[in-house]
Amino acid sequence: MDAEHKLEVRKLEILDKSKGFIELLQQLTICDSVSDKEFEERFQEINSYGDDHLICVIEDDRSGKIIATGSVFIEKKFLRNCGKVGHIEDVVVDSAARGMQLGKKIIDFLTDHAHSMGCYKVILDCSLENKAFYEKCGYKQKEVQMVKYFI
Amino acid sequence: MDAEHKLEVRKLEILDKSKGFIELLQQLTICDSVSDKEFEERFQEINSYGDDHLICVIEDDRSGKIIATGSVFIEKKFLRNCGKVGHIEDVVVDSAARGMQLGKKIIDFLTDHAHSMGCYKVILDCSLENKAFYEKCGYKQKEVQMVKYFI
Repeated sequence: MDAEHKLEVRKLEILDKSKGFIELLQQLTICDSVSDKEFEERFQEINSYGDDHLICVIEDDRSGKIIATGSVFIEKKFLRNCGKVGHIEDVVVDSAARGMQLGKKIIDFLTDHAHSMGCYKVILDCSLENKAFYEKCGYKQKEVQMVKYFI
Repeated sequence: MDAEHKLEVRKLEILDKSKGFIELLQQLTICDSVSDKEFEERFQEINSYGDDHLICVIEDDRSGKIIATGSVFIEKKFLRNCGKVGHIEDVVVDSAARGMQLGKKIIDFLTDHAHSMGCYKVILDCSLENKAFYEKCGYKQKEVQMVKYFI
């Protein structure tokens, strides 16, 4: 990476659909193609939560492609004196862009956002395989995740 | 339990603060007393999400006390064809009311809500100790939970 190659974290923009955002999510899980209309509707729904639901991306300014993303939403509780908790979801780095600490950049950005929003903690679920990465980001294993699928 | 002793799951109401809702949460984790004003503000904030953030309770109609609670919020994603995921949080049953399947009633209510909202899955984090309970509710262990505390 030379000095002029900027890889900054920024908020998701509506034009990012044409920059490979959905294709990037496909590296994480099942994510069929989404129409422009569906994308825009979901974008606006998430946007209506303001700072309570943030999706960030890293765009490769050379290729114009989105090469990393992650999201955090802020849950409002009654416990912990009406506390807030950040939930990090859907973190993925393009398989061709690994080894550049982009994952850490994304996690730091989302963690800082949750902190600035007044959360008392941030949580996320990951595979055992990815545990070491999150430990490098300052996270510790606590509980186990349980899931029920409807489809 | 006789037949006339109704223990139905319903949505949290603003009057539930005076029925021991906060004291019940204190059985789960740190939860200092909350003023009526703080409670009402947080109640309205959560209420503004409509069906996207539901807190339910069970009131003992004999004692007039809240004896079980749980919450679920609906996260909107782009992946899984702009799918939705339910996140269950803050499930607690009064220690004096265990063994009446109230926990399962709460989980079933929250799970059904997520299903009716079109979620493709529901997730929650729990201690290893509580894993067997959630398995009885139809959940399976999948990932591990990582956490970072700010305070």
